Amino acid sequence: MINLAIVGPGLLGGSIALAARHRYRVALWARRAEAVTELEAAGIGDRASTDLRSVVADADLVVLCVPVGAMPALAREVAAAARGDALVTDVGSVKAPLCEQLGAILGGRFVGSHPMAGSEQTGLAAARADLFADAVTIVTPDARTELSATAAISGFWTALGCRVLQLSPGEHDEIVALVSHLPHLLAATLVNTVAAKNAQAFDFCGPGFRDTTRVAGGPPAMWAEILGTNRDAVGRAVEALIENLREIVRLLDRDRPMTDFLTLAKAQRDRLRLPKTPHA
Amino acid sequence: MINLAIVGPGLLGGSIALAARHRYRVALWARRAEAVTELEAAGIGDRASTDLRSVVADADLVVLCVPVGAMPALAREVAAAARGDALVTDVGSVKAPLCEQLGAILGGRFVGSHPMAGSEQTGLAAARADLFADAVTIVTPDARTELSATAAISGFWTALGCRVLQLSPGEHDEIVALVSHLPHLLAATLVNTVAAKNAQAFDFCGPGFRDTTRVAGGPPAMWAEILGTNRDAVGRAVEALIENLREIVRLLDRDRPMTDFLTLAKAQRDRLRLPKTPHA
Repeated sequence: MINLAIVGPGLLGGSIALAARHRYRVALWARRAEAVTELEAAGIGDRASTDLRSVVADADLVVLCVPVGAMPALAREVAAAARGDALVTDVGSVKAPLCEQLGAILGGRFVGSHPMAGSEQTGLAAARADLFADAVTIVTPDARTELSATAAISGFWTALGCRVLQLSPGEHDEIVALVSHLPHLLAATLVNTVAAKNAQAFDFCGPGFRDTTRVAGGPPAMWAEILGTNRDAVGRAVEALIENLREIVRLLDRDRPMTDFLTLAKAQRDRLRLPKTPHA
Repeated sequence: MINLAIVGPGLLGGSIALAARHRYRVALWARRAEAVTELEAAGIGDRASTDLRSVVADADLVVLCVPVGAMPALAREVAAAARGDALVTDVGSVKAPLCEQLGAILGGRFVGSHPMAGSEQTGLAAARADLFADAVTIVTPDARTELSATAAISGFWTALGCRVLQLSPGEHDEIVALVSHLPHLLAATLVNTVAAKNAQAFDFCGPGFRDTTRVAGGPPAMWAEILGTNRDAVGRAVEALIENLREIVRLLDRDRPMTDFLTLAKAQRDRLRLPKTPHA
């Protein structure tokens, strides 16, 4: 059986452990002893420890599941403690700067991953074995990455139920700026705009407002870090959106062009691949 | 039993008929004979007809469930055909201009309503008896409205399962510009911005993007009409949002203020009253 080491038992790390059981021997590292106790009480993974060295020493595959800013320091410890042929990946939401840093530390056996799963909930308590069912995971090799590492990591995510797609780290960051970071910033800005204009308005929300703003319930510090790390692409995405908003406001009194604009949006929205399982 | 006449058997009209059965004797008017056949086949309402006069003649309560632009002409027919003491309401998403028009036609027995229910789906096939369960309905009397009409119409929506709130037509339009019309325009603009910047990005959507853009799947012509009818308030809401977006983009490289901004949004989002039943 393949030895899997998961570094960081949050929503993603915990869900990977649940999805990987029966197929992998799963060891988890947590920074806090309370988290280890929680993992053991929940029966998640085959073993858990605060000692990173013991968790990764015999690992065939190490998955870094900590916030983006905490990755490099842990990657250095993994590089020192793991076998030289252990493959390493991460689940960070921004890839270009991170893959550069982690690749420099870990070499060709590292390849970046971004499972596009999760919810506004966080922490081990929200972990689910089916979090990755039908989710997209983007794998982001660069010039340094060994082909065999890309193949093995892609196979790992496929085994967990993901659809695996491949992009360069830079392409990844441009695309998630559009489909993840921009929507997050928009949702938060929408909530704060309504609050500033008329806080009473929250009493009149329908399901549309709730869905449009759901992601704004996500963890603030984590998202501030993600947005900051991808600031250039996010900034460009926001500028493009503002430009389009300015144009569309001019169509408010022109029924036909506005209908055309909404028809185009509907056609593209209707083509989105919908998940087989409803995600929270 | 109270005689209820529903003018227009779409998602809202059909759902009202389903929610009101057993409690009201329900007659429905549809413009097309095929829609009458569909109503009869589905067993929705006690009777259905394309003859507006026969549908509203004995009504105690008439609910106009047609697009905003079609309301005044039908209201004139209702005024001519219904009893003088029949109460009339509508389900339009914009209230100030509509209540002015309909009040002029129908007098003090008219009071505007806006049930904040529905989904991106449309038509009778999407109608559900529980569409109004725990939904907010805003009732919008003005100076012309008789108090007894407001009370009776509020009671009607309460009987259907709604939480009823009251606003003036103008307050209503300001508030729904923020919590309904702005989110709709944003969702459509987000979809079209992504399409223009990088259509490949749609292949990488997670549940966040799907939820944030769900309302963009709504009927384009209906929404163009709603947005145009409420253009002043929508324009102000968009301007406020753009201003806030411009400010927040400047915080992308400042972790602490961005975290504060997202924390404020999360706190407000987390306080939103969530529905008892998941709405589509």
